[in-house]
Amino acid sequence: MDNYTLHDIYKMERSFRTNLINSISGIKSANLIGTSNSEGLTNLAVFNSVMHIGANPPLLSIFVRPHKVERHTYENIKSTGYFTINAVNKSLLERAHLTSGKFAKEVSEFLMCDIKPSFSDVHPAPYVEESPIQIGLRMEEEYHINANQTILVIGRIIEIIFPKDGFGKDGQLAWKDLNLLGINGLSNYCEPSTFKSMPYVRKESIQSS
Amino acid sequence: MDNYTLHDIYKMERSFRTNLINSISGIKSANLIGTSNSEGLTNLAVFNSVMHIGANPPLLSIFVRPHKVERHTYENIKSTGYFTINAVNKSLLERAHLTSGKFAKEVSEFLMCDIKPSFSDVHPAPYVEESPIQIGLRMEEEYHINANQTILVIGRIIEIIFPKDGFGKDGQLAWKDLNLLGINGLSNYCEPSTFKSMPYVRKESIQSS
Repeated sequence: MDNYTLHDIYKMERSFRTNLINSISGIKSANLIGTSNSEGLTNLAVFNSVMHIGANPPLLSIFVRPHKVERHTYENIKSTGYFTINAVNKSLLERAHLTSGKFAKEVSEFLMCDIKPSFSDVHPAPYVEESPIQIGLRMEEEYHINANQTILVIGRIIEIIFPKDGFGKDGQLAWKDLNLLGINGLSNYCEPSTFKSMPYVRKESIQSS
Repeated sequence: MDNYTLHDIYKMERSFRTNLINSISGIKSANLIGTSNSEGLTNLAVFNSVMHIGANPPLLSIFVRPHKVERHTYENIKSTGYFTINAVNKSLLERAHLTSGKFAKEVSEFLMCDIKPSFSDVHPAPYVEESPIQIGLRMEEEYHINANQTILVIGRIIEIIFPKDGFGKDGQLAWKDLNLLGINGLSNYCEPSTFKSMPYVRKESIQSS
């Protein structure tokens, strides 16, 4: 095993360091974030930072960088108060990744990347019609991170659109049937294969092990 | 497709809702968080909330619930200022999951779950010797989430311990060689199989598509 100190990390070539630090934190969820501005122009961007915050109330979060790639997403969330999280599956992969390009504010990634939006009665943010898990959220809170000016945006789930057989009797996602993808770093999409479901750990199982 | 509103979600049976909301946000990184208290007693807990915050400075975060499962982890980070993130691979799976059980404050999960710690000169937090990616962090900031009292803990990477061939020339993790695992929900561990690496999206590639 090799050791790298903070000093070594700072000495690394910039794109090498970006790739390394983006990938060492492991596999992430690949999602498309849908928003619209106050005039109704839609926006769509691929994110790898969706995180679970809590089940009751149902809360999810994303990290946005206000003056870099996801600027329109954040501005739209601020002006309308709503966004959608749409899981990326195998058939969406190429088009979803294309949304990471730089688009002018007046064009919609839905149109430019050939992804069809759909709408709900409950809020103004667009869903990705093809996505097998479409989650509508109302912005709840935001935290500005001092260390690097990223912003944690927390949303409360107000709607979930799912295939009828999208989850089991216990509420667990039918992951494989949905052809969902993960992402490592900024550009390595992966397909989870074998799953191992572990039981809830009780005191007795620890003592007897 | 079925629609579920916030009202429907609140009406769901508790464990069903917990499983559903924990799993819909997709696949996560499976990691063991190592800490020690001010007397040097080690603690280890499996987490599914490691997130990338930034590459320069190199920052990662975890979400902790102070009065629930990961209480000792948070208290130790607060009292010593340091923690480690250790990737879970296939051979660690069962023992890593066992750390999610409830252990008394005076016992170490390293001992109870048969996981060997290792130490560095740079900080007091224990690493998981077997883990293929061992990351040492100094606590940088914390944010208390109003909506459900979870705490976002941000650490600055001060050390990385890696196999020599753990990443490619571009800094990307040699994911498959490391036998790393992802996790969906609280208990479904998965092994990523096929990977598809997508190119950086340039303006030209959008216009010509």
